Amino acid sequence: MKNPTAAMLVIGDEILSGRTRDANMHHLSGVLTDHGIDLKEARVVSDDHAAIVEAIQALSKAYTHVFTSGGIGPTHDDITADAVADAMGVTIDVREDARRVLAAHYAATGIELNEARLRMARIPEGAALINNPVSAAPGFTIGNVHVMAGVPKIFEAMVASLVPTLTGGDPVLSRSIRVERAEGEIAGPLGALAEGYPHLSFGSYPFQTERGFGAYVVIRGTQSEQIDDAEQKLCEAIAQLAPPS
Amino acid sequence: MKNPTAAMLVIGDEILSGRTRDANMHHLSGVLTDHGIDLKEARVVSDDHAAIVEAIQALSKAYTHVFTSGGIGPTHDDITADAVADAMGVTIDVREDARRVLAAHYAATGIELNEARLRMARIPEGAALINNPVSAAPGFTIGNVHVMAGVPKIFEAMVASLVPTLTGGDPVLSRSIRVERAEGEIAGPLGALAEGYPHLSFGSYPFQTERGFGAYVVIRGTQSEQIDDAEQKLCEAIAQLAPPS
Repeated sequence: MKNPTAAMLVIGDEILSGRTRDANMHHLSGVLTDHGIDLKEARVVSDDHAAIVEAIQALSKAYTHVFTSGGIGPTHDDITADAVADAMGVTIDVREDARRVLAAHYAATGIELNEARLRMARIPEGAALINNPVSAAPGFTIGNVHVMAGVPKIFEAMVASLVPTLTGGDPVLSRSIRVERAEGEIAGPLGALAEGYPHLSFGSYPFQTERGFGAYVVIRGTQSEQIDDAEQKLCEAIAQLAPPS
Repeated sequence: MKNPTAAMLVIGDEILSGRTRDANMHHLSGVLTDHGIDLKEARVVSDDHAAIVEAIQALSKAYTHVFTSGGIGPTHDDITADAVADAMGVTIDVREDARRVLAAHYAATGIELNEARLRMARIPEGAALINNPVSAAPGFTIGNVHVMAGVPKIFEAMVASLVPTLTGGDPVLSRSIRVERAEGEIAGPLGALAEGYPHLSFGSYPFQTERGFGAYVVIRGTQSEQIDDAEQKLCEAIAQLAPPS
């Protein structure tokens, strides 16, 4: 598969301390899968300048795209924009286009555009703005790094406006087959099947009910005929197993 | 703070494809916070040997502990144990102590210990086993890397048996203060307060209700008197703000 690749970087102490459960990774992974961009890695780091810089540099070098979430609000712990600018080797300051977006939004709602809120207009030199239909303060794209808000409603809106503009590949199709046999029973035939289909991936996810063990076998790939074919072979192989022990 | 540090490595295609939403990171982060171990970073990688090796080597060098989740079952996509052995430069094979654990479990339940299930007794040389009260197949600790199952019920049971054996530090206390003012209003005083308390961390997490904007300010640290003090100063500063704009 030659689909574009991606990494996600979630930024925020609140995730690592257990205060908040991240929701953005799960959302983004589904959107990218549908768009034919392969999410290869995700990282969570704290609100720490050096940690953000290091992660951005490593991930932007390794993957086609990097998507970040968190740390672009008005408070002192919102340091993502400055760290990304540093990581990409560009300057950052309040930018007139972003300031105008905020000024218009706050004028319409009768709120003062004070110094703290103006921080949200700090945009790295050369970055393109990402529209924020929820609360105006924009995200931005610099190089292959897409910087978005952490609040899920805003993150999702930014993803919705950004991802359709990126070149996608073949959407990765997946087929989930519920098997009423323990993983340890199907592991042999499943491994043999996986060897025969190098362009498909086969995952096995166990479950347990009161009737016993089972597994969901998930076949993933970009060619639906191949998946059909592998599914049929899997069902035949399972039918030939000895009765459940 | 001189608490031990930690990283988590979640292993599994199913998280990155969006099929499954990871739950183990959120669980572990809470347990470690209570135990005085600071989770500094988390990563998610796919079921890919090279990716697992690279992440294990980077994280085990950088942090006191590394906790992994996923990829230690009986199927062909369960490659974590072999990758961890490679990363730590030790050999791996079916080990007699782990084989005995599995044999006893399967004998008691009348299930055959076949070749696939025996893969779960592959344990790196020199590793200590982590007890699995749910389904027997053990996790293990090699060096500073703790390898556990991905199924949340099993992961949580392994964490419960492992973490109390690790040296902890001062539990990190946190205080969450609900403020009925927009982040943009409180950002100034909050930033000033954070500068005055270098041993505390201050996070701000916005919310919106029908009555308007607000934020949870979370103060974190190991000294409860300091947190009390900072909370009082925060409340005083907020009381002195101009009425909501």
